[in-house]
Amino acid sequence: MPHINLGNDAPGIVSLLIYRPETAKPLSDLAEALLRGPSSLTPGERELIAAYVSRLNDCSFCSDSHAAFAAAQLPEGMTLVDQVRADPGGAPVSAKLGALLRIAAAVQRGGKNVRAQDVEAAREAGASDLEIHDVVLIAAAFCMMNRYVDGLATTLPDDPDGYAVAAKSIVSAGYAALAR
Amino acid sequence: MPHINLGNDAPGIVSLLIYRPETAKPLSDLAEALLRGPSSLTPGERELIAAYVSRLNDCSFCSDSHAAFAAAQLPEGMTLVDQVRADPGGAPVSAKLGALLRIAAAVQRGGKNVRAQDVEAAREAGASDLEIHDVVLIAAAFCMMNRYVDGLATTLPDDPDGYAVAAKSIVSAGYAALAR
Repeated sequence: MPHINLGNDAPGIVSLLIYRPETAKPLSDLAEALLRGPSSLTPGERELIAAYVSRLNDCSFCSDSHAAFAAAQLPEGMTLVDQVRADPGGAPVSAKLGALLRIAAAVQRGGKNVRAQDVEAAREAGASDLEIHDVVLIAAAFCMMNRYVDGLATTLPDDPDGYAVAAKSIVSAGYAALAR
Repeated sequence: MPHINLGNDAPGIVSLLIYRPETAKPLSDLAEALLRGPSSLTPGERELIAAYVSRLNDCSFCSDSHAAFAAAQLPEGMTLVDQVRADPGGAPVSAKLGALLRIAAAVQRGGKNVRAQDVEAAREAGASDLEIHDVVLIAAAFCMMNRYVDGLATTLPDDPDGYAVAAKSIVSAGYAALAR
């Protein structure tokens, strides 16, 4: 049961976006820009980073929903998503994505945990400065979203298949539709 | 020196807002809604929570800048801000603000650290559900901002008096001006 009366029974962050439209708009605009805006990282790769960081933060709602969003947009589907969430070092991802996942994990522990050599390794694996920037901000943003969702004890969906249904809506209409 | 080439020498988050306007807009809109939008918590109280959480995350730029913004808007000024940052339990704040600071500290550690009894204590001290919501999101948002600022190793201002100068701009023009 949520810690406060949200006035709706939607699960996870959706209940919070309905409860507080004034903050829902910038939060969904941020998700849209980071996860679906123009970028040389694919939406699937960015959702994978979001699902991984959310797993590190032990946030079931965010990790499982963004896992579904990643799986819907990656050729390797949920198999790869589950491999990355369980053991990113052993998952069959490119050297660049591997290096970016290591930066994301450092950000999750705290900003000062990102070392110059982590950034250099990503650059040597082909990551651009803009990609490094965006991965740091995606990881940081999910340290917010995860705390928001769990800090108010929002609920999980009754039917876990709901994540795959939501994925279709995110892929076709984006995050902006979530805040409405 | 920042981890990536930001193309400007502004300090802290300002350098990142200039570097990436697409994410600067939702980030500054979020800060404006949370810290300066309509609320029964004063802007000074909300900035104080931001400065405190940023101190817990060891982010000098965010803690010292929001400390200046809080001091500019609280009758007790920097004396109270420094007391809260050093020892919130011993600081002369209302029972309500004290309970909200304890919730903010729990969010900083992780969303699941917020216990039902923390929320109940805040409610008994007079906090509304909306105030509790906003404090959880302020604390969560600074867990993002702090990681963003330090994860990319942004610089500190050469002159620490810059924070007080920035405070005048924030109080008069708000966060929206920062992103432009």
